[in-house]
Amino acid sequence: MIDYILRIACPDEKGLVHKITGVLYHNELSVIRNDEFVDRENDYFFMRTEFSGDCDPDRIVNGLKGILPQSAIIELITKQIKDVVVLVTKEHHCLSDLLIRNEYKDLNFNILAVIGNHDTLRPLTEKFNIPFHHVSAEGISREAHESAIEQLVKSYNPDYLVLAKFMRILTPEFTDKFKNQVLNIHHSFLPAFIGANPYKQAYQRGVKIIGATAHFVTDDLDEGPIVYQDIIRVNHSKTAQEMAQAGRDVEKIVLANALKLVFEDKVFIHGNKTIIFE
Amino acid sequence: MIDYILRIACPDEKGLVHKITGVLYHNELSVIRNDEFVDRENDYFFMRTEFSGDCDPDRIVNGLKGILPQSAIIELITKQIKDVVVLVTKEHHCLSDLLIRNEYKDLNFNILAVIGNHDTLRPLTEKFNIPFHHVSAEGISREAHESAIEQLVKSYNPDYLVLAKFMRILTPEFTDKFKNQVLNIHHSFLPAFIGANPYKQAYQRGVKIIGATAHFVTDDLDEGPIVYQDIIRVNHSKTAQEMAQAGRDVEKIVLANALKLVFEDKVFIHGNKTIIFE
Amino acid sequence: MIDYILRIACPDEKGLVHKITGVLYHNELSVIRNDEFVDRENDYFFMRTEFSGDCDPDRIVNGLKGILPQSAIIELITKQIKDVVVLVTKEHHCLSDLLIRNEYKDLNFNILAVIGNHDTLRPLTEKFNIPFHHVSAEGISREAHESAIEQLVKSYNPDYLVLAKFMRILTPEFTDKFKNQVLNIHHSFLPAFIGANPYKQAYQRGVKIIGATAHFVTDDLDEGPIVYQDIIRVNHSKTAQEMAQAGRDVEKIVLANALKLVFEDKVFIHGNKTIIFE
Amino acid sequence: MIDYILRIACPDEKGLVHKITGVLYHNELSVIRNDEFVDRENDYFFMRTEFSGDCDPDRIVNGLKGILPQSAIIELITKQIKDVVVLVTKEHHCLSDLLIRNEYKDLNFNILAVIGNHDTLRPLTEKFNIPFHHVSAEGISREAHESAIEQLVKSYNPDYLVLAKFMRILTPEFTDKFKNQVLNIHHSFLPAFIGANPYKQAYQRGVKIIGATAHFVTDDLDEGPIVYQDIIRVNHSKTAQEMAQAGRDVEKIVLANALKLVFEDKVFIHGNKTIIFE
Repeated sequence: MIDYILRIACPDEKGLVHKITGVLYHNELSVIRNDEFVDRENDYFFMRTEFSGDCDPDRIVNGLKGILPQSAIIELITKQIKDVVVLVTKEHHCLSDLLIRNEYKDLNFNILAVIGNHDTLRPLTEKFNIPFHHVSAEGISREAHESAIEQLVKSYNPDYLVLAKFMRILTPEFTDKFKNQVLNIHHSFLPAFIGANPYKQAYQRGVKIIGATAHFVTDDLDEGPIVYQDIIRVNHSKTAQEMAQAGRDVEKIVLANALKLVFEDKVFIHGNKTIIFE
Repeated sequence: MIDYILRIACPDEKGLVHKITGVLYHNELSVIRNDEFVDRENDYFFMRTEFSGDCDPDRIVNGLKGILPQSAIIELITKQIKDVVVLVTKEHHCLSDLLIRNEYKDLNFNILAVIGNHDTLRPLTEKFNIPFHHVSAEGISREAHESAIEQLVKSYNPDYLVLAKFMRILTPEFTDKFKNQVLNIHHSFLPAFIGANPYKQAYQRGVKIIGATAHFVTDDLDEGPIVYQDIIRVNHSKTAQEMAQAGRDVEKIVLANALKLVFEDKVFIHGNKTIIFE
Repeated sequence: MIDYILRIACPDEKGLVHKITGVLYHNELSVIRNDEFVDRENDYFFMRTEFSGDCDPDRIVNGLKGILPQSAIIELITKQIKDVVVLVTKEHHCLSDLLIRNEYKDLNFNILAVIGNHDTLRPLTEKFNIPFHHVSAEGISREAHESAIEQLVKSYNPDYLVLAKFMRILTPEFTDKFKNQVLNIHHSFLPAFIGANPYKQAYQRGVKIIGATAHFVTDDLDEGPIVYQDIIRVNHSKTAQEMAQAGRDVEKIVLANALKLVFEDKVFIHGNKTIIFE
Repeated sequence: MIDYILRIACPDEKGLVHKITGVLYHNELSVIRNDEFVDRENDYFFMRTEFSGDCDPDRIVNGLKGILPQSAIIELITKQIKDVVVLVTKEHHCLSDLLIRNEYKDLNFNILAVIGNHDTLRPLTEKFNIPFHHVSAEGISREAHESAIEQLVKSYNPDYLVLAKFMRILTPEFTDKFKNQVLNIHHSFLPAFIGANPYKQAYQRGVKIIGATAHFVTDDLDEGPIVYQDIIRVNHSKTAQEMAQAGRDVEKIVLANALKLVFEDKVFIHGNKTIIFE
């Protein structure tokens, strides 16, 4: 059984693996799985270790602080089920997939609440006895709307915020408050289409594949570090509507795969990219 | 055995399939496979029919002209092996795949010659007893260079021109002379990266998939009608060089798949998209 | 708009497409999409035509009977939403996906009822206001159990019966009563593993991909005509349990894709294979 | 730069990573990448470490022997380009892909020679200035044939033997002499087809995907530890011949991917499965 997951990110230097595992060994802990990666371009070290045994977490972390560079980020994780708040608009496909996985414990997460800027998905959410909050953006400023969402989210104190087809652009002010905690899903095309109605453009261009990308949200909504991507094949006989439907199927699978990696603490964010120990 | 492939594209109207197949039936020809598609958005009709039997092609085409709208494009194809000239620069991966397929008749094509703006791929080409022409762009104007290539290509009178990693941008003046005859392959990313060294950008962004797109070349080099696309998975442990190598593997497969469809006369171009009867 | 779908299967002979479309043309109907395939090995002809317009279906069918071989199967379909009964055991993943798609009209079907040989999935089903019937196999003969299911199914008169992880083997006596109406989903491996606990075997063999196959059920449960297949990648770090979870994700997608094709009347069954006009 | 790759496999015990990396650290070596996996079912430990620096290999290995369980397998690899002999019959597709990759250094290997039980592929091989040996099986016993091949192979002293569509079954006596050194590629189907002409069977069953599996060869030719697998989509319109051609395309890609992993020393064999540090 995994009791702890240790995650370390710091500038690289000689002997890091040896020193880190030494702290575990001298505390009589058993390493179950260990992954390590050095980004040679930036000389940065990433390590994730699953281990079992009885330990005093503070003692481990202090032991590690003593041997690691000052700027090291050390996380010792015991909470394997993550608390999540989901933000939605009107499309159901990602939310319904998450609600089913929540109901059957198919992902190691726990949905605390769903917040919608429309009330459309309340009945679906409430079927699964999850609280649904409607925070309309109508008639109020963007700041007021985000502030209302922020307060609600904070009242639940989640580990992650999942944008499951939340169709509003969040301001950097908002996302900065939940740094590395906000995940988003969106469709992707080869080539990329800019502007309104991308599925119509994709249809008119006759694309043969439609993709989806799940990523962390940083200041620029669709441009944060990528966690997972996949594609689905389409052909000329699909209408723009059918392409959109195919896109929804790949979006929900990509989001679920990305969340599985994130919730298992397998994803490191460094600059604008991810290091993932699958 | 397929003796003929009939391809028709015209504005849609009632009874087209009936009338067209009537011409074949009354000439005692046997339909082997028939595909038809109507683009509802543009009310445009596409039909491809494989048939066998003895016929006078002129008689068939004239029969069809009598029943089809004036603007109909009618092609009655008997030449199943396509003549091809390949344009290259220095990268070998697409050319070598094509040379092997040519040698073993794995694609219904016949490579007449390879033209390179560098001499790099001459030894490879000549191993397979295919003429290689080096047309350097050094010290001459773009017009002069393209004109030299054009003359050489025309001397071979190919059905298609394949840009197998030809790293120069062709002018609309050139491509207009080979309308619907020029195919290109290039890598594609989700998201798209603009500017120099896209693999470096893809690496820095930590993309999880790398794609390739084969398309007809129109005025805008990378923007013509798409024939085939595919992707390959990568992860953070790949360097930019390894991503480029993975990209080469998917490029050569995508190009071969696209050429197979085109050379079997399964691809219709309409506006900026393709209709493909796989 | 598609008003009718015409499906014809018969021994091949010259002029079939011309004659069939003639009946439509002379009734002033507009062909929207037409697909035709001749199985050369068996000289058998398959055609599917979407058309619009006002017509007397009997007149069309009689017109077609007059020109087609006696053994021709002619189907003129107007019912585009299919009625379905779902059979389950304890696993939720396929059922939940179907319930969501039913709720949001993501597939052109209508779930009339769910029948379980266990009562496990009643709460899930009833969340969506679909009747759930528990028909236990305990303490009764296989014949009695199947007979109870048969009666219940017949009371709903569905177009199709979907085995969404129904873990009992149906007798040929049962499946013969619903010929070409029963669809099943199961995992598939390369290589195939025979006997109990295939995921454990797959784990021990270290397979790198896990597949799923959706097929019509004939006499031999896992051996009927295949409609759709797909795979998902796994690696050595997955436990047998995680492989099974990955398998569930691919099963639900494969089942949904297969049902979409079947419910759009795009699938012909001929002998032990399918012809599918995607 | 990677100077060494260290590979260790042994029964698991506490502190292994710490102790192993200690030996590297005390020799002032820099770990570039480290992967470790414990097979919990068998309590077996696998570790692969890329490191750089100046070292005396004997000193490192002796240092490791002092701290590891007696049964530990310790490999310290400095030879990054692997010497390979390829065995073929008549099909060219895998061989030609390997010859091209060899010519352009696209895989870290060096083809020393090609041996064929037919002479068919001599011209192709010799185009690339690789020795080709024809060892006919005609008129001699299986033992005599294998013995002739064995002697020839041993005269080249390769690191690996690649069966690139070698269509004869090797005896356990032969493969035992090249334990963990022989790689094979073959097509795979869902479901599996036993007996002659599997593509004909696959065609008749109407399969929708065709797979390929690259694996190490053990006593049972098609049943050794799997290294890489992939699939390609087909449909009813493909003849058995076209399915076989699609199969060849996926075979050559799967073989190249598998060899890349093996030649980078990323593959561990344990019992009948592989652990692969991609």
